[in-house]
Amino acid sequence: MLRRLLPVTVAGLLAAGVLAGYNVVFAQEITSDAKNLDQSANTIWMFGAFLVFFMQAGFAFLGAGLIRGKNTVNYMTKSFLDFGMASLSFWAFGFALMWGTSALGIAGTTNFFLTDAAKGQNYVDWVFQMVFAATAATIVAGAVAERTKTQAYLAYSFMIGAIIYPVYGHWVWGGGWLGADAGLLVSIGLPAAKDYAGSGVVHAVGGFVALAGAAVVGPRIGKYNADGSANTLLGHSVPFVVIGTFILFFGWFGFNINTGDSIGLNAINTLLAGATGSVVAMYIVLVRTGKTDVLVACNGALAGLVGITAPVAFVEPWSAVVIGAIAAPIMLTSVKVIEKVFKIDDPVSAISVHGTTGLWGLLAVGIFANGNNGVSGLVAGNSLQIVSQLISMGVVLVWALGTGFALFLALKYGMGVRATREEELEGLDMPEHGLQAYPVDTQVAGAGGGG
Amino acid sequence: MLRRLLPVTVAGLLAAGVLAGYNVVFAQEITSDAKNLDQSANTIWMFGAFLVFFMQAGFAFLGAGLIRGKNTVNYMTKSFLDFGMASLSFWAFGFALMWGTSALGIAGTTNFFLTDAAKGQNYVDWVFQMVFAATAATIVAGAVAERTKTQAYLAYSFMIGAIIYPVYGHWVWGGGWLGADAGLLVSIGLPAAKDYAGSGVVHAVGGFVALAGAAVVGPRIGKYNADGSANTLLGHSVPFVVIGTFILFFGWFGFNINTGDSIGLNAINTLLAGATGSVVAMYIVLVRTGKTDVLVACNGALAGLVGITAPVAFVEPWSAVVIGAIAAPIMLTSVKVIEKVFKIDDPVSAISVHGTTGLWGLLAVGIFANGNNGVSGLVAGNSLQIVSQLISMGVVLVWALGTGFALFLALKYGMGVRATREEELEGLDMPEHGLQAYPVDTQVAGAGGGG
Amino acid sequence: MLRRLLPVTVAGLLAAGVLAGYNVVFAQEITSDAKNLDQSANTIWMFGAFLVFFMQAGFAFLGAGLIRGKNTVNYMTKSFLDFGMASLSFWAFGFALMWGTSALGIAGTTNFFLTDAAKGQNYVDWVFQMVFAATAATIVAGAVAERTKTQAYLAYSFMIGAIIYPVYGHWVWGGGWLGADAGLLVSIGLPAAKDYAGSGVVHAVGGFVALAGAAVVGPRIGKYNADGSANTLLGHSVPFVVIGTFILFFGWFGFNINTGDSIGLNAINTLLAGATGSVVAMYIVLVRTGKTDVLVACNGALAGLVGITAPVAFVEPWSAVVIGAIAAPIMLTSVKVIEKVFKIDDPVSAISVHGTTGLWGLLAVGIFANGNNGVSGLVAGNSLQIVSQLISMGVVLVWALGTGFALFLALKYGMGVRATREEELEGLDMPEHGLQAYPVDTQVAGAGGGG
Repeated sequence: MLRRLLPVTVAGLLAAGVLAGYNVVFAQEITSDAKNLDQSANTIWMFGAFLVFFMQAGFAFLGAGLIRGKNTVNYMTKSFLDFGMASLSFWAFGFALMWGTSALGIAGTTNFFLTDAAKGQNYVDWVFQMVFAATAATIVAGAVAERTKTQAYLAYSFMIGAIIYPVYGHWVWGGGWLGADAGLLVSIGLPAAKDYAGSGVVHAVGGFVALAGAAVVGPRIGKYNADGSANTLLGHSVPFVVIGTFILFFGWFGFNINTGDSIGLNAINTLLAGATGSVVAMYIVLVRTGKTDVLVACNGALAGLVGITAPVAFVEPWSAVVIGAIAAPIMLTSVKVIEKVFKIDDPVSAISVHGTTGLWGLLAVGIFANGNNGVSGLVAGNSLQIVSQLISMGVVLVWALGTGFALFLALKYGMGVRATREEELEGLDMPEHGLQAYPVDTQVAGAGGGG
Repeated sequence: MLRRLLPVTVAGLLAAGVLAGYNVVFAQEITSDAKNLDQSANTIWMFGAFLVFFMQAGFAFLGAGLIRGKNTVNYMTKSFLDFGMASLSFWAFGFALMWGTSALGIAGTTNFFLTDAAKGQNYVDWVFQMVFAATAATIVAGAVAERTKTQAYLAYSFMIGAIIYPVYGHWVWGGGWLGADAGLLVSIGLPAAKDYAGSGVVHAVGGFVALAGAAVVGPRIGKYNADGSANTLLGHSVPFVVIGTFILFFGWFGFNINTGDSIGLNAINTLLAGATGSVVAMYIVLVRTGKTDVLVACNGALAGLVGITAPVAFVEPWSAVVIGAIAAPIMLTSVKVIEKVFKIDDPVSAISVHGTTGLWGLLAVGIFANGNNGVSGLVAGNSLQIVSQLISMGVVLVWALGTGFALFLALKYGMGVRATREEELEGLDMPEHGLQAYPVDTQVAGAGGGG
Repeated sequence: MLRRLLPVTVAGLLAAGVLAGYNVVFAQEITSDAKNLDQSANTIWMFGAFLVFFMQAGFAFLGAGLIRGKNTVNYMTKSFLDFGMASLSFWAFGFALMWGTSALGIAGTTNFFLTDAAKGQNYVDWVFQMVFAATAATIVAGAVAERTKTQAYLAYSFMIGAIIYPVYGHWVWGGGWLGADAGLLVSIGLPAAKDYAGSGVVHAVGGFVALAGAAVVGPRIGKYNADGSANTLLGHSVPFVVIGTFILFFGWFGFNINTGDSIGLNAINTLLAGATGSVVAMYIVLVRTGKTDVLVACNGALAGLVGITAPVAFVEPWSAVVIGAIAAPIMLTSVKVIEKVFKIDDPVSAISVHGTTGLWGLLAVGIFANGNNGVSGLVAGNSLQIVSQLISMGVVLVWALGTGFALFLALKYGMGVRATREEELEGLDMPEHGLQAYPVDTQVAGAGGGG
């Protein structure tokens, strides 16, 4: 069974990596090229990466707040462990496939287990890439929450870090056919596809794998009525959602970091797009319902942030405001379509916030890039960039949905992905983990949970 | 009605900014002066700004912990959206008024919508200033919590970022009459007023606008008895308060950041003042009541931090200890005076922690500045600096109270600021937001809220 | 009574420090050696220190989640105030004992109250060291939680910052006999003991002082049955535990920070060891119980992080994976031994996570150091380093247990360390603090606590 193979795989990986690494230590003449390092830039990348790591805490809070108390331990477990699983698989395979010497622009082929990484620069790159991979991984946790088996989720986490994230990442960032100066796109006369910080590489990949996962796992019991109409299953802590969003926003400054002259540009664009997204989403719903919905405002901020992620280094601040303002209704529309048209149950709106809006970010490069950092879109009179962006949008959609469905279907038939009806009705916390989020007998009278 | 104008204003702003920015892109010859940037300093300013941004999460936690569960969604909504609102108004107007070319030392006049900001340096400055403006804005949320309409609060947020914060900021930091080397104060033979990181510009402005807001809105139902005595309305989560304070303390290292030789001085002074404030406040109340009150310790830490914010780069560590030690009883006394003498209901003590102690910070410069970074006070034998500081204290008091009362009174008569009696008794969460902080039907048996 | 002396001591310290500092300002010719500062490195140290400061919030969340709701205010109070107490004692005494001019390699003797610290470099060092001392201090809070008097705990906090942490720190880092190039160990032909970021100096010191504290205070009522078997007393919020762990992991990148070429090496090793620890601990328990236990995974991550802390700059990434993988079972075994063999009640497993695994970190240097940054262990063919490491392991064990037992026994007989039976059964929050973590009368119906 697949289920039994996973811990064995992990153990095997550790052993293989250790042997590989051990040989390197003795067999390889380590010649440091430290003198060539741009140490100041590396400092920025590393502190940026630490902020991105901290987004894990944001996703944990956000997701926990949006789901029900009876599945909170389950969600926290997945949200915590996917980082560890993806780290190990990215160390063993992912980094090599993404950043190794490219084979025909399709995948990297060197540096499995970091064995060629005797140079400090590689370590900086690895850490920076790893926290991005972990972000892609944890996006899916929310979409499949409240009904997915933990072991199946951990197997998925392993695979997104090993293959799904790195391969598309290679195509755009790692010297592959979409993004390299000598890649296929360029060879046919188009500009290289651009995605500065990962609207596509991270968010659209995570968001559409999430779509596949949520579709394969199916909706939660009680989400849809017999007539096909949808119910709202409220989460259990609004403060957790708001704090989680603030943490994500904070971490996003690291996600979209730049060095040198552009450090201020990237920060202001990030801030303005997120702020605009929150305000516009809030007003849209206020006009519609008369209520100020902070959950919508949070998702609006995140939509603005996802949207600005690809174009952040290529556009002026006024464009960041526009990109954020458009991201909000795109996200809100997508939420409705996913729920009501596709009948896919996504408890945290991850598909819309990260997937759909991720596509918008890729497109926005083709429209608003004004020549900053060498990229020009429609506003700068270049109508070719948008063609490359459309191609990369199509590619990420096909790749993430294709691998996502393949993976979750394999898991479904290999080890099972869905908790039993009894477990789901009771909540997954006791059956899968033997633990309640807020154990009753430890509480003072009247003082409950914690979110 | 003012109420209807706000979304229209926001939409108009977006449109105006976009048009303005769009013209810039095509009309302006962009000559980068990147070579002149001190990139290393910019890196420090940017990461410092990210930490200051994160203080938003601290304020959200702190305020949520100190108020009742039935108004928690309302507080979180304000605490989250004031950042977005203030960002947009600071982008459109505030930055221009604060940092544009000064008209007679009164206000800046250029760079509305950042249209002249073709240079990277401006972006760094903008982001750094913006997160400070947002701090001033969110200070008020706690003081008016549990009874103020959301739309009125959002309108206030817009105005503090557009005018109130930037104008006083211009006077002290932006080339205006109080702080510029060629300003009015200097022209009459006094030293320029000094406020390194904003005891006055951020905290006293926020704190005294908060006083005006709380006074205009009036006390919460149940706060005062018929005989004028006050009741304590306990908040709903002590852990949220402590975590919020830790986050604020953490962010304060960014708030008080410096570059070059002074980076260590500013950090040690920040740490010592906050630590001393917490310990001294705790012992004062321990002696009085026999109990260790962590809420008081948290406010003591914040008082120490507010107090050191103006003098942080100008004093020795022993002075930071003294400044923190004095800030604690000042804050405690102010809390009593505001509650019992002025009968103003401030659920989170924002007026005392930020306003009163902010004045103490300005005064402390005049006493303890020892010549560091070119500023000398009484301990260095200069008795003139304290005169300038007293003037700036008077000015901030008049400015913040004047504009604060004008704004909140305008809102009161224009759109209404106070929730109805029914809404307040029920809690604002359902009437204003249609959402509970911890929805009952999503909880496992016996596991409640989350704060 | 000792109890009454503490506030007096604190007040006296403030006065003494102020006088001392005041004299310095006037008496000392301040000659800045700013030109010699490596400002870029200082920036890294400072931002690293800010991250380490933030670990205080992680410990607060983690500990609060692992204990019962009725003692949560008590824990938060200790967790918050130990930082302030340790800051003041480290300012007055600790920094001098740790980093002053060494007397025979035993303790520093200069710079009490930072009076010789007229140079900016000292301020950077002080802040960096202070947040490490605070980490050691707060480790103990969890081990003695739910039954220890607040005043006794604050007295302990003062002493660990004044003496316990700095003296062992001097021996290893501050020019003392274990770690200095001219120290006793080197003079007898052994290599200097190495502990890059404090598996021993911070974690083992904190962990074994925690053992002494927990042993002297005794187990919580209800922890052990009459037949000696142990009960599990569940904590009150799993989300708090997970978020706390994420914050600690985030802060650990600052804890293990390095400058120059090694910044990437330290980050990757930190990440991989923590990730591996979480996955391995989780699978060990999964195999044993069939359940995925996120609390175990969190402790596994922390164990991996503690284990890599000493060797982080000296080993290759494959070794970090191995060190993290071994740390997990060491921690799990230690938890059982402490609970079942020693019958010591440690509500948060601090002794095992920080103490036992801290020793493993010291040992790991002797095994896996491969010559990076000049340290070689068994894998690099040097069998002497491990001897020095074993000596430093023995020394930290003796020092931390010796001073820990002496201190807690002195507190026990001087002022009493244990709450009364009535207080403990009720929970310490009301008797000691007059405050509930989640006051009942402030809650909306059915919405409880907050963790």
